Amino acid sequence: MRLKLGMVGGGQGAFIGGVHRIAARLDGRWELVAGAFSSDPKRAAASAADLGIAPDRAYADFTEMALSESRRPDKIDAVAIVTPNHLHAKVASAFLKAGIAVICDKPMTATLGEAEELATLVSETGVPFILTQTYTGYPMVREARAMVARGDIGQVRHVQVEYLQDWLSGPVEQTGQKQAAWRTDPKFSGEGGCIADIGTHAVNLATFVTGLRLQAVLADLTAFEPGRRLDDNAAVLLRFTTEAKGMIWASQIVPGTKNALRLRIAGDRGGLAWDQENPDMLEFTPVGEQIRLIRRGEAGTSAFARTPAGHPEGYLEAFATLYADAAARIGQKAAASAVEANDLLPGAEDGLVGMRFVAACIRSSHSGGTWTPV
Amino acid sequence: MRLKLGMVGGGQGAFIGGVHRIAARLDGRWELVAGAFSSDPKRAAASAADLGIAPDRAYADFTEMALSESRRPDKIDAVAIVTPNHLHAKVASAFLKAGIAVICDKPMTATLGEAEELATLVSETGVPFILTQTYTGYPMVREARAMVARGDIGQVRHVQVEYLQDWLSGPVEQTGQKQAAWRTDPKFSGEGGCIADIGTHAVNLATFVTGLRLQAVLADLTAFEPGRRLDDNAAVLLRFTTEAKGMIWASQIVPGTKNALRLRIAGDRGGLAWDQENPDMLEFTPVGEQIRLIRRGEAGTSAFARTPAGHPEGYLEAFATLYADAAARIGQKAAASAVEANDLLPGAEDGLVGMRFVAACIRSSHSGGTWTPV
Amino acid sequence: MRLKLGMVGGGQGAFIGGVHRIAARLDGRWELVAGAFSSDPKRAAASAADLGIAPDRAYADFTEMALSESRRPDKIDAVAIVTPNHLHAKVASAFLKAGIAVICDKPMTATLGEAEELATLVSETGVPFILTQTYTGYPMVREARAMVARGDIGQVRHVQVEYLQDWLSGPVEQTGQKQAAWRTDPKFSGEGGCIADIGTHAVNLATFVTGLRLQAVLADLTAFEPGRRLDDNAAVLLRFTTEAKGMIWASQIVPGTKNALRLRIAGDRGGLAWDQENPDMLEFTPVGEQIRLIRRGEAGTSAFARTPAGHPEGYLEAFATLYADAAARIGQKAAASAVEANDLLPGAEDGLVGMRFVAACIRSSHSGGTWTPV
Amino acid sequence: MRLKLGMVGGGQGAFIGGVHRIAARLDGRWELVAGAFSSDPKRAAASAADLGIAPDRAYADFTEMALSESRRPDKIDAVAIVTPNHLHAKVASAFLKAGIAVICDKPMTATLGEAEELATLVSETGVPFILTQTYTGYPMVREARAMVARGDIGQVRHVQVEYLQDWLSGPVEQTGQKQAAWRTDPKFSGEGGCIADIGTHAVNLATFVTGLRLQAVLADLTAFEPGRRLDDNAAVLLRFTTEAKGMIWASQIVPGTKNALRLRIAGDRGGLAWDQENPDMLEFTPVGEQIRLIRRGEAGTSAFARTPAGHPEGYLEAFATLYADAAARIGQKAAASAVEANDLLPGAEDGLVGMRFVAACIRSSHSGGTWTPV
Repeated sequence: MRLKLGMVGGGQGAFIGGVHRIAARLDGRWELVAGAFSSDPKRAAASAADLGIAPDRAYADFTEMALSESRRPDKIDAVAIVTPNHLHAKVASAFLKAGIAVICDKPMTATLGEAEELATLVSETGVPFILTQTYTGYPMVREARAMVARGDIGQVRHVQVEYLQDWLSGPVEQTGQKQAAWRTDPKFSGEGGCIADIGTHAVNLATFVTGLRLQAVLADLTAFEPGRRLDDNAAVLLRFTTEAKGMIWASQIVPGTKNALRLRIAGDRGGLAWDQENPDMLEFTPVGEQIRLIRRGEAGTSAFARTPAGHPEGYLEAFATLYADAAARIGQKAAASAVEANDLLPGAEDGLVGMRFVAACIRSSHSGGTWTPV
Repeated sequence: MRLKLGMVGGGQGAFIGGVHRIAARLDGRWELVAGAFSSDPKRAAASAADLGIAPDRAYADFTEMALSESRRPDKIDAVAIVTPNHLHAKVASAFLKAGIAVICDKPMTATLGEAEELATLVSETGVPFILTQTYTGYPMVREARAMVARGDIGQVRHVQVEYLQDWLSGPVEQTGQKQAAWRTDPKFSGEGGCIADIGTHAVNLATFVTGLRLQAVLADLTAFEPGRRLDDNAAVLLRFTTEAKGMIWASQIVPGTKNALRLRIAGDRGGLAWDQENPDMLEFTPVGEQIRLIRRGEAGTSAFARTPAGHPEGYLEAFATLYADAAARIGQKAAASAVEANDLLPGAEDGLVGMRFVAACIRSSHSGGTWTPV
Repeated sequence: MRLKLGMVGGGQGAFIGGVHRIAARLDGRWELVAGAFSSDPKRAAASAADLGIAPDRAYADFTEMALSESRRPDKIDAVAIVTPNHLHAKVASAFLKAGIAVICDKPMTATLGEAEELATLVSETGVPFILTQTYTGYPMVREARAMVARGDIGQVRHVQVEYLQDWLSGPVEQTGQKQAAWRTDPKFSGEGGCIADIGTHAVNLATFVTGLRLQAVLADLTAFEPGRRLDDNAAVLLRFTTEAKGMIWASQIVPGTKNALRLRIAGDRGGLAWDQENPDMLEFTPVGEQIRLIRRGEAGTSAFARTPAGHPEGYLEAFATLYADAAARIGQKAAASAVEANDLLPGAEDGLVGMRFVAACIRSSHSGGTWTPV
Repeated sequence: MRLKLGMVGGGQGAFIGGVHRIAARLDGRWELVAGAFSSDPKRAAASAADLGIAPDRAYADFTEMALSESRRPDKIDAVAIVTPNHLHAKVASAFLKAGIAVICDKPMTATLGEAEELATLVSETGVPFILTQTYTGYPMVREARAMVARGDIGQVRHVQVEYLQDWLSGPVEQTGQKQAAWRTDPKFSGEGGCIADIGTHAVNLATFVTGLRLQAVLADLTAFEPGRRLDDNAAVLLRFTTEAKGMIWASQIVPGTKNALRLRIAGDRGGLAWDQENPDMLEFTPVGEQIRLIRRGEAGTSAFARTPAGHPEGYLEAFATLYADAAARIGQKAAASAVEANDLLPGAEDGLVGMRFVAACIRSSHSGGTWTPV
């Protein structure tokens, strides 16, 4: 009934591992049965015990885990990868080669080269690879995508995305804050700072909802905080393969903002707006008419949801929807949103688009601001 | 590690049972292992199978379930009661007498008499009884309570609560909609309509956050929809045992509102406002100063939460917090919010207050609008 | 072309007189040519000089002004009364008897007895009397009235009005603040505090928009601030002559609120909401449909306005609309909103309703909370 | 007491002339006494009569008006220029040369060449020239400017401005709509469409509030509507002469937006946000603290205003403040905001910056998107 999940990374003290576990549990379609929670054997064992994993499925090494699991009759149906970014490629390869489906936290890999190799491997093996681009799991994001697809706003003209945070407003990385330290260090995060960390979500949201493909970018990346080595503010102009254009403002130094991801789309027949911090609502305006506030669960909306209108669902539910859809795809079983799962779940191609976007932005900015193909 | 949960009610087709199961699963502290999901044996068995319950713990009868479970060495740690309201008292009694902790959906019972008996039983047996007054599980509701308790707004003067919905704006009960049918039928819902269904949440929120005790009410209950037998709109004046006063407007016929529960408190040193449909935010204004927007997870806030500021948490997370706290209390185990669990979890006394509130409002309204002690 | 305006009260240091002068000037339909700006001759003369009034029309006494002006060939077309409340009745009588139209600041008079006499005088003389119930001048308030009248929300069921301020949150009247001193002193303000000062606006807004007539009230008035002699918080239940009901919460001790007058109406076919602090917008929801945000000046709206949608108009413009309509009525001249002027301008009857509302609330509250006819 | 105002343009049927007249009247510091309201003598005379202008000061020609007025002992103190844009330069020159102060609607001129000549003339003659950049008259815009100047948000890092409208979403100019016709026609509007019409307001707001000077722009201008000859959407990257950067999104094809001018500033010690459609409010967040909502008229604010907090002031009041300040400067008389008038009133230099901004954006966009000095 429930599928079996393994996990690599996410031991005691980690953040995103816990989020994946909540998301996997929420709809009751996954059971966590195996894990290599840390490269430190003691911490790996302790985490496994905490999580109720049987000792013979508590691994200290992901390579061993991939091999062992692939040989068990009750092997895991999928592995969740929640390690630091620079390990994503290696871990994913090991499991894909072992024929085990992968649910990988974003970004797909640390470098574009790795991402391209991984995408090829996914394509060659045919093993499911799912990238947890969380924001695509929000019901009203999916509703917006469906509305654009059926022509409610006509031809898309301009796409505006902003993703604003304030947690890097000061020299946080010099205060011992771990998250800040590795995210501003090129060794662990690659060449992109803010543009990679949140800019990728912005571009993913834009393309997911509009169905457009990015053609070129022109970027101005800045590290405003003195001494910071990676960008903390990104201004990007976008061109798509249609006539559509767009802008992204991604920043981690805007005081007063927490996780302010906001999308606005102007089409020739209507407009749409969505805000991650108020995610159950869409603003929709047909040209020449009044703004309509569309709420999740209202008459006329079709996106999957667990509770009626007015009962807020949030980030964890969006994340859980990705796990529910993954269960539907991997388990080939009926599920509430199973029918659409194949279209909606982000995969290796989406990860690759994100990595190419980051690389193009960095090139464009280094060259002083020139249009750069993606 | 995980506690064992049983469930009465909540079989195929039910709504609130599914919410309880998500809430129980979300933090991984409960495992559903037994249930009497329906009074219809076939549906009970089918639901149990769907939910992966072992056949010997799939019961067709809650009395039998209470007895059987109480004798097992691996008996359930608690039972969740999600039956129609008129069964709450009987089911709860059976399990309390069997020494099994109860997690009961609201309202506590169908009548005040039942509620009083049940409260006595809880007190006599000493078995944990938890009432899922969901809104007390919201982090910023708990933050508001803590702020009031430590004097941030001084002495409370006026408490304003509104709880507005629109789903009963027309004759929905005559269209075959089941929820509407039983909620507007005195046989299943008792004498209170809107006042019992959502007015109880309103008064619970007011007393939970302020710590005040209700002294008297003056109510004007109306059934606006032609032919409706129970009130669908309630206007209530409140007096507390201090000098504080208040008002409740609860209504299910306000077009454009979904689940609009909103609390505002005026104190002599400051004001507070909270809105269930935007639950991660508090508005706080010290007298003579500017409004401050306090967001869950921000520096200076202390309420338990699973994700950082800007990652919306909602109704299911609030519900899950009640289950997490229940696990902490029942399991006597360490938990994130364990320390506060005894103070914060709503119990039989809270249920009784709600039932007395409803009874007093009905008496007050029937008498043409007089102050009626609670 | 322009009508000639006189003014009684509103000399140097006064507040509301300045507002009337701006309102009169804004649309260019009035010219201030005479005044008795103060009962102190020196201040009266100085104020007149400041305002460019010819010396022979700068009066020290309103009785003399009424007489003198009524005999001039170029006499004033109307007088604006902006004195303290207890003088309204006397001043208005003097000018009405002299055949000069009156534009009177609210409240109409200090006592209900005076209001009744004045209403009779207005009716007997047939001289125009306009009460500046400012909020009826807002375009979207008038739009809402028109929508209700044409049945957009069907039969009105519940009317909710709140009018919240925070400026009396502390013992301001003991600090030498003049406004606070006279408004909390029964000698100058009569028996009603908050209920008279802002409660009258609340009830006026409710009846203006819905077209309903008040039948009875049940009120709980409180003076929360220690030592205050008049109510600073009012909770009122309303019954109208139809089946409709309502509530008013008027308060001057809610920290964080400034001039928060808000109206919500639930009808059997739709709902409406309006907020004075965001006055260019109406929220309109037909039953079963999505919320629509209607903005002043948008296609489909008809209310008079000076600027296109998106160019905020506010309090002074609403006030000026009353003066423009007054010019249209008094001058019998064509004006943008002249056609509707007779229906929309508040007069003696409206003032009387307000005074009766206050008196009934005070009686109801003194009697411990009983339904009291208005 | 009152200053004497003349007007060129703004006859019957015109829009912006009426706005200037309201603004001039609102605070009672100006009296309209002369005008050349139309180049058509009949319309000029009719408009003058409507407006109560004495026949000998109703001119059919602005050159004649400048001459005649300059010779009168009671000559006008200033002329308001509200003609179509391509006449601004000629009219302004005529009056400046006649020694009469000019209050000119924006944009300053139709071409950059004209603007430069005009700025030189202003500088040479020393006659006051005021450009009605309306948005600088909003109290909270001035408050924001003062806050930045005194270091409340530290060093400015990123400035984000958006100015969105929807009125050009379709082929409006082909439907006989006059405003749309001339604004999309290079003959009347010069080379810039949206970038000139509203982009100039955006950049003016950014520089006014921050005190920064623009160094270079990179623009992507688009005419999305088929057949339109001037841009209706502008994406612009900004660099200032400090380290600060910014973005402007100006568009007239975003369905659901009316006049959505919004400014956000990220500094190294705090952030600020302002929205023209909710103009009485500032959002201010010191780094590491909670958002504070600052309302016009609240304790701690200093910007000039006519009414207390909570009584909305809007576009016309902002416009009137420019006229009040102009009266203070031109009349050398005491006025509420007179002290700051010299700093705050936009003049020829500001107009020139706007024209240079437009020219640079057009060059940048034509060259395919390159950084272009301003």
